[in-house]
Amino acid sequence: MSAELLSRIRVVLSRTSHPGNIGATARAMKTMGLSALYLVAPKKPIDAEAEAMASGADDLLRGARLCASLDEALQGTVYALAVSARRRELAHASADARSAVQPLVAAAQAGAVALVFGTEMSGLSNEEILQCSATAHISADPGYSSLNLAAAVQVLAYEVRVAALGAQLFAPSEFALARHEDIENFYVHLEQSLLASGFLDPANPRRLMPRLRRLFGRNRLEQEEVNILRGMLNAFDKNT
Amino acid sequence: MSAELLSRIRVVLSRTSHPGNIGATARAMKTMGLSALYLVAPKKPIDAEAEAMASGADDLLRGARLCASLDEALQGTVYALAVSARRRELAHASADARSAVQPLVAAAQAGAVALVFGTEMSGLSNEEILQCSATAHISADPGYSSLNLAAAVQVLAYEVRVAALGAQLFAPSEFALARHEDIENFYVHLEQSLLASGFLDPANPRRLMPRLRRLFGRNRLEQEEVNILRGMLNAFDKNT
Repeated sequence: MSAELLSRIRVVLSRTSHPGNIGATARAMKTMGLSALYLVAPKKPIDAEAEAMASGADDLLRGARLCASLDEALQGTVYALAVSARRRELAHASADARSAVQPLVAAAQAGAVALVFGTEMSGLSNEEILQCSATAHISADPGYSSLNLAAAVQVLAYEVRVAALGAQLFAPSEFALARHEDIENFYVHLEQSLLASGFLDPANPRRLMPRLRRLFGRNRLEQEEVNILRGMLNAFDKNT
Repeated sequence: MSAELLSRIRVVLSRTSHPGNIGATARAMKTMGLSALYLVAPKKPIDAEAEAMASGADDLLRGARLCASLDEALQGTVYALAVSARRRELAHASADARSAVQPLVAAAQAGAVALVFGTEMSGLSNEEILQCSATAHISADPGYSSLNLAAAVQVLAYEVRVAALGAQLFAPSEFALARHEDIENFYVHLEQSLLASGFLDPANPRRLMPRLRRLFGRNRLEQEEVNILRGMLNAFDKNT
């Protein structure tokens, strides 16, 4: 069961600069039993340096899925954990890695999940963070917190492995979790309804949609809940 | 106190082949607040590759102590933990990394201690292992357990840091949480809006309001979020 659980955990690297880091990430993943590598718009393709750093984990490089956007890489997932060193004003509260992997591993009992990492230099964008379900950080020295990308993947993958093989898992929800794409479609609908109602002023959107993403994103929305929210919006739309 | 504790924890690399791994080890150590690097008879001296991989942790390279033997590197320590992937017939029973760092950190309150790592290819010799107080392994995939040297240092240094500091949590939220009565008023407003829009049929309410309470109740709503939700409902109401 735990091998199947680990197979459902994607590692998503967004806009990586150095192919060597992709290779080192593949090695780090494979040591911990993870295999699903997703690359969002890497600045350079997988090359000989990547294969050298993968050092026997080149099967993960060959199986890597190339995606144009984070949205594409998260298709079909029910939970995504953004890994970020920086404090974010409007993001979810950030949990330490050990706590943060617990709900991720629990959600993996229900479907695909993702660990999401940003660029070597600047990490994830706020927009990317708000597409995820939660945010994690690795406890590090405040004066020098710059873990190498593959080192950060190693620590999170290690925590995931310990959590997955260890005994106590939260009971999975009795209801089906919504898929990423259904949640994104809900946000599109919500924005349209708010524009039509006049509450969202396109000339002055303030931070309304990010705030609403933060509110709903803290929940792992269930499929039926998304259906209800969409139904509500349809009812409001009719009167607009 | 915990910074002083971390300063007493040496990382000892025995007979390292590649200077790049020494540099990457320095970086991994520094992110976790460790600073005391001991090199036992490295096959090649610290070079430009080591400095490139250290990436800002070159102060640790400059401060590294060069030793002729493991015995010399362990002078003055009160506890040494051998890190080894392989099963050893004649060694101590091996504990997983998380358990193994507990007595190490406890001993660091009394004096200097060491995490001891062997060569990239064959790890520590049996003779070296038996100079240490205990043995640790990192849980890894049985089919591919070959962590990069610096990755293994990263995981152990991370476990040491978490044990020494306790998991630091960021504040759960920087924003004021909504009060119970404000949330209840929101539910009253939501129900009225849903009745007016026709989505909630008073003759057949099904379980709509309980489901919405369950959805929003899983979040601890913030005051500002309740204000936004009430504003949205006002905008929808106007069009009803």
